[in-house]
Amino acid sequence: MRSVGVGVIGFGTIGAGVVKLLLSRRRLLASRTGMDIRLLSLCDRDFSRDRGIGKVPGEITTKDWKKVVGDPRVDIVVELVGGTKVAKDIVLSALKNGKIVVTANKALVSEYAEEIFSIGRLGENLFFEASVCGAIPVIKGIREALVVNRIHGLYGIVNGTCNYILTSMFDSAMEFDAVLRQAQELGYAEKDPSLDVEGIDSAHKVSLLALISFGKYVHPDKIPTEGITRVELLDLLYAGEMGYRIKLLAVAEQRREGLDIRVHPALVPEEHLLASVDGVFNALYVKSDSAGDMMFYGRGAGRFPTASAVVSDIVDAGRRRLWGGPQVRSAVDFSPRLAGVESRYYLRLTVVDKPGVLAKISGVLGAHSVSIASVQQTERAKGRNNTVPLILITHEVDEGKMRKALEEISALDVVKREPVLIRIVDL
Amino acid sequence: MRSVGVGVIGFGTIGAGVVKLLLSRRRLLASRTGMDIRLLSLCDRDFSRDRGIGKVPGEITTKDWKKVVGDPRVDIVVELVGGTKVAKDIVLSALKNGKIVVTANKALVSEYAEEIFSIGRLGENLFFEASVCGAIPVIKGIREALVVNRIHGLYGIVNGTCNYILTSMFDSAMEFDAVLRQAQELGYAEKDPSLDVEGIDSAHKVSLLALISFGKYVHPDKIPTEGITRVELLDLLYAGEMGYRIKLLAVAEQRREGLDIRVHPALVPEEHLLASVDGVFNALYVKSDSAGDMMFYGRGAGRFPTASAVVSDIVDAGRRRLWGGPQVRSAVDFSPRLAGVESRYYLRLTVVDKPGVLAKISGVLGAHSVSIASVQQTERAKGRNNTVPLILITHEVDEGKMRKALEEISALDVVKREPVLIRIVDL
Repeated sequence: MRSVGVGVIGFGTIGAGVVKLLLSRRRLLASRTGMDIRLLSLCDRDFSRDRGIGKVPGEITTKDWKKVVGDPRVDIVVELVGGTKVAKDIVLSALKNGKIVVTANKALVSEYAEEIFSIGRLGENLFFEASVCGAIPVIKGIREALVVNRIHGLYGIVNGTCNYILTSMFDSAMEFDAVLRQAQELGYAEKDPSLDVEGIDSAHKVSLLALISFGKYVHPDKIPTEGITRVELLDLLYAGEMGYRIKLLAVAEQRREGLDIRVHPALVPEEHLLASVDGVFNALYVKSDSAGDMMFYGRGAGRFPTASAVVSDIVDAGRRRLWGGPQVRSAVDFSPRLAGVESRYYLRLTVVDKPGVLAKISGVLGAHSVSIASVQQTERAKGRNNTVPLILITHEVDEGKMRKALEEISALDVVKREPVLIRIVDL
Repeated sequence: MRSVGVGVIGFGTIGAGVVKLLLSRRRLLASRTGMDIRLLSLCDRDFSRDRGIGKVPGEITTKDWKKVVGDPRVDIVVELVGGTKVAKDIVLSALKNGKIVVTANKALVSEYAEEIFSIGRLGENLFFEASVCGAIPVIKGIREALVVNRIHGLYGIVNGTCNYILTSMFDSAMEFDAVLRQAQELGYAEKDPSLDVEGIDSAHKVSLLALISFGKYVHPDKIPTEGITRVELLDLLYAGEMGYRIKLLAVAEQRREGLDIRVHPALVPEEHLLASVDGVFNALYVKSDSAGDMMFYGRGAGRFPTASAVVSDIVDAGRRRLWGGPQVRSAVDFSPRLAGVESRYYLRLTVVDKPGVLAKISGVLGAHSVSIASVQQTERAKGRNNTVPLILITHEVDEGKMRKALEEISALDVVKREPVLIRIVDL
């Protein structure tokens, strides 16, 4: 049996999961893959802390990542350091040294794709399944299973923290702040949750998904991104009454006019399968021309789910090292044309409860060619200063027009508080 | 660029889809896979009928499948004839000739796995993704993405016809026969629908899924199989009221006592994602030890969805032919130990509406150690001869005990009509 040497850099949560699986399942992997996958090197700055995976053979540990990257017995370098500083040095120097690199680092690959892909032969030597949606084989699924398809659109719930928060807000009728605290206590949210709740993590992932699906790269900073911090319980409840769930969606659609790529809270029709993806789970809904609609669902984070995807990549990397052959890859356009897209909107206004208000507002919308599909005004939720919530659903409209109309509406004296505007995604 | 030669046998619905994709997407495939995939040979008994895919080059057509299988330029034989007679000869002789075989034929592979796998090097030269769940990469997902996992259980909605019928019965409040007729008119059900509605097609698929997930082969004839022909609208509605959907499930679970494999209608809790898989769509829910819960969803049938999976297999087969390397496979146990499993049950009885009936029935259940979790008896649905429906939900119980209790209950004079017994699958 041919063998392949692996070096793991980063012995944190995921790293320890990968080490545990490689050591304890070596024989299982050999019988299934026909390869002896040998963990030859493990690097971290600190080995004193107990990782809860039992004993690791001392002779394979090192504190110097350069030793791993320079070790001629190491075929595959697994980067699990995280961040974009040392990790970037590790990945670039490993690729330059001819190693095959496996990483779970979405920030690194999405922010430095151009640099990394130029060294990694269009990414043929880079495997990053674990960086998007944890255990779920979204990259393998799109590249290999859909190899003959043209992808039309991707709609992802790719951040478990946000999905947990939105699900809990709705189910427990609690506001964002309270649920966030609960999520932090449960370990579903970081102490500083901004990467997740501001949508940045989702932007990293949708950047990678567009790269592999359309061969088009958009830097995360250029992806219009809105998080969930401004989603209120009230909106979840109104949306629910109207037959929608609110989800943080990562969207990439290929249109004639260009690529539309974005991250934002969205109203999803409750009968659509994505609306039923709850809690910390992730899912990616893919529309393509031959296969039609498809969805991949599973755990997007956690030690062993993520390690499962890393090991799957190690197996593919091992095959590539031992037998060669091209990976399924596309040439990448690093400056694709982008396009906005029309959509329907949910608009919640806090208005003074007096005659003529609706006429004023609908007048402004009409002047900007925003057509109203439905209106809901109830007396139940009467607020301070004689205000009531007014919910409007628009027909399809260009985002620019919508924003302009909204600006004008915000300035009306009958409109109190900041309006809430959420896209409806009709899948 | 290295090229690989393909011969397609069977120019029906799927065959024409595959031919169309191979011809029209040859360049796209080459750019993505690094292989020139050449359709060299196309076999059918009849080429006069228009397949609706435009012109096929006459020089590649033949009516003799032996020419395809014997053609030294053909690396990959794609069997899309269907059935288990000629198709079996084709697959076996192609494998013996050293070809790599791609097939969408679940009946053939599941019924003759032992013979086929003994020639095909444990199936390393046989690719059959398209035979289970059409476009959805369930085999690739389990074998490759979950390569380091031990699978605990599989729960599949793997027959689109049945799922369409059950969904429509519930949504339109119609009985089985009427919906079946409608499905036949829409092309979702065959003229002779028995393979689908009797659960046989699902048994073929779960046989293959267990083979690849557990390395355990059970002939479809040995899989306890119950179709949907006895599911009544009433049961869908009662289940709905209690928070369940009824789905035809293909189940395979690895237990300490053995493999539990079966096909039957089941009550699935409505908050579970599988309960939201509606219409002709298929889904496979997989529980494994590292990755945790995962679900694959998509189109399980149809020309292009199935052809999409066939082409994905052709690409993998091409890699194998050109570069070699073992596929992810497990040794197969062809006579695994089987085990039944305890479960909760939904039981609907038609009873005479008079005092003491419930006491009689619960007495029989108690005598067989069947414990009742809930009872529902309503006056609304009063039937002929002063009968009413009585719905019982049991706690977990061994199937044997349940069946014995049921036999005794059926014989009671207060019980009219055949009792309806449906498993509850708690996922």
